[in-house]
Amino acid sequence: MSEQLAILDLVYDDLKRVEQKMRAMGGEAYGPLAEAFLHLLGSGGKRLRPALALVAYRFFYESASEKTIALAAAVETLHNATLVHDDLIDGALLRRGGTTLNAIWGRGATVLAGDYLFARSAGFAAESENVRVVQLFAETLRIICDGELRQLFSTGQWRQPVETYYKRISAKTASLFAAATRSAAILADAPADMEQALYDYGYHLGMAFQIVDDILDFTGDEVVLGKPVGSDLRQGIITLPFFYYLQAHPSPDALLATLEDYKQNNNHGNAGGAQNAGSASRPNGRQDPMAGVIASVRASEAIQHAAAEARDFAAQAKADLLILPDGECRQAMEELADFVVARQI
Amino acid sequence: MSEQLAILDLVYDDLKRVEQKMRAMGGEAYGPLAEAFLHLLGSGGKRLRPALALVAYRFFYESASEKTIALAAAVETLHNATLVHDDLIDGALLRRGGTTLNAIWGRGATVLAGDYLFARSAGFAAESENVRVVQLFAETLRIICDGELRQLFSTGQWRQPVETYYKRISAKTASLFAAATRSAAILADAPADMEQALYDYGYHLGMAFQIVDDILDFTGDEVVLGKPVGSDLRQGIITLPFFYYLQAHPSPDALLATLEDYKQNNNHGNAGGAQNAGSASRPNGRQDPMAGVIASVRASEAIQHAAAEARDFAAQAKADLLILPDGECRQAMEELADFVVARQI
Repeated sequence: MSEQLAILDLVYDDLKRVEQKMRAMGGEAYGPLAEAFLHLLGSGGKRLRPALALVAYRFFYESASEKTIALAAAVETLHNATLVHDDLIDGALLRRGGTTLNAIWGRGATVLAGDYLFARSAGFAAESENVRVVQLFAETLRIICDGELRQLFSTGQWRQPVETYYKRISAKTASLFAAATRSAAILADAPADMEQALYDYGYHLGMAFQIVDDILDFTGDEVVLGKPVGSDLRQGIITLPFFYYLQAHPSPDALLATLEDYKQNNNHGNAGGAQNAGSASRPNGRQDPMAGVIASVRASEAIQHAAAEARDFAAQAKADLLILPDGECRQAMEELADFVVARQI
Repeated sequence: MSEQLAILDLVYDDLKRVEQKMRAMGGEAYGPLAEAFLHLLGSGGKRLRPALALVAYRFFYESASEKTIALAAAVETLHNATLVHDDLIDGALLRRGGTTLNAIWGRGATVLAGDYLFARSAGFAAESENVRVVQLFAETLRIICDGELRQLFSTGQWRQPVETYYKRISAKTASLFAAATRSAAILADAPADMEQALYDYGYHLGMAFQIVDDILDFTGDEVVLGKPVGSDLRQGIITLPFFYYLQAHPSPDALLATLEDYKQNNNHGNAGGAQNAGSASRPNGRQDPMAGVIASVRASEAIQHAAAEARDFAAQAKADLLILPDGECRQAMEELADFVVARQI
């Protein structure tokens, strides 16, 4: 992601305060955990979610209040907590090209480190001293967990209505983007219509963001992604490009038979066993049939179809902003919406 | 635990409301999760923590407010969330004689189910609409996770100062008892000295409770406990009876060598690998040296020594109540303190 994004420039100083607040977690935590946090916080990520909260607040006030800094830290810490548990569940050893906590620690410690981050994020949210913010925050966490569970239990179910996909990404991604912008509007005491507009922007941006993420899982560079191409499909997670690919496929039954065969051989597809499914294991040098499917999806029109969908969401996000005053905040949010659908990582 | 405990009678109607509130979680959750919750909520447990919150509130008001019911549900839901993750970390398949979620579901779903319960407990806490309660709640969750991590990382370290034990049980158990009573006092707008007294009572009661739990792990009946005797020590977790036993042992080095040997053969003792350590596996019918150690601890004076310590904490808990008005609430809390140290499960 480019460092030149206007949104990151605009809230640069505030983001530094958020970063400091998060790093201070290390000081209060048990030794090995503190080290793990520094590793986690230092492992990249562009702080998009806290930046969204900060710029939403900036529509109303020049500089972020301490409560807004705490809110932004809550959002980013919650995001990191879900990543720690996601990596554990997926058995992922790499993220953003670096080792995951899961790769360094065992299962138990990783579960507890994620729990600790959930606790800290709740603590940061409570520092906002705003009941509505705390309630929105708790409800968002609930929705994210619900979405992750739905994803886990639908693993390896190749034929799903596309609505389940939208529901899933709405829960696991868009909800937190929307909570970030809405919470900031609440803390700024924004008029109801502007609070709603900022919520809608966050929601639509989050939808676009996740669809692009799911496209990049097929089209991205393994080195840049830091994980194998097509890892979602290998894990039995159905994303938008695959929905479109399956829809247009001349012999869907044969395709699904190939996937089912892969699933059986790799022992996926139940909520209990969805573990360590990210790699393309080929025992005895056998041909990997999944690689062929992934290459076909990557080369198909399904990618463009999904990208158009992402652009629609980004356009909706920009339209949501129209009732907000024009100026550097709105322009930065518009640029971000364009960037999200143009990005290559 | 006897159904005749005065505290449970006293808040019987309020506890039913808490129960209803918790069961309503099922209605809003994803299908398989809802089933799992009903299993979890139906698997016993005497709702001691919510009862403590309710009776603390009752010092000031006859019937619990909706916010107090939400708080009590938050406390019990948080407790259940930690149990779900604890069982996963320990690889425990049984709790209270019933199967754990961990035994039914896989790792991923169990992690997420626990996360969902954390989220719900935060949501219940937010329903109190009290900033201090929410902050106390988040801080308690942080302390619990910190305590669990310390326990995990000290697994298999046979020689620890006894202070680490007190610190650990203070974090993982007493903190939540104390948060339950203090939060209720906050919601009741209790005078500062009474809030402090209720906090202290919860804290000392929690300490007594955990020491007795740790004694019962040695002296209890396997069938009633629903887990093997001495499971803590088998997992490399050092509790108070073992501290006293080691202190009085004529040849501590030989004892520790036996334990170290057991640890090596059972591959415990690092934070990564502390998994599924609850059973007494004896490959090839070899003698289980740990069984001998556990039997010796059970028969030793260390048990009485630890029990005396628990009684001291219970006595402190009762003394904490002296500034509160005498009456059915105080009497019920005094009886509970006596019961906690007399209980056989």
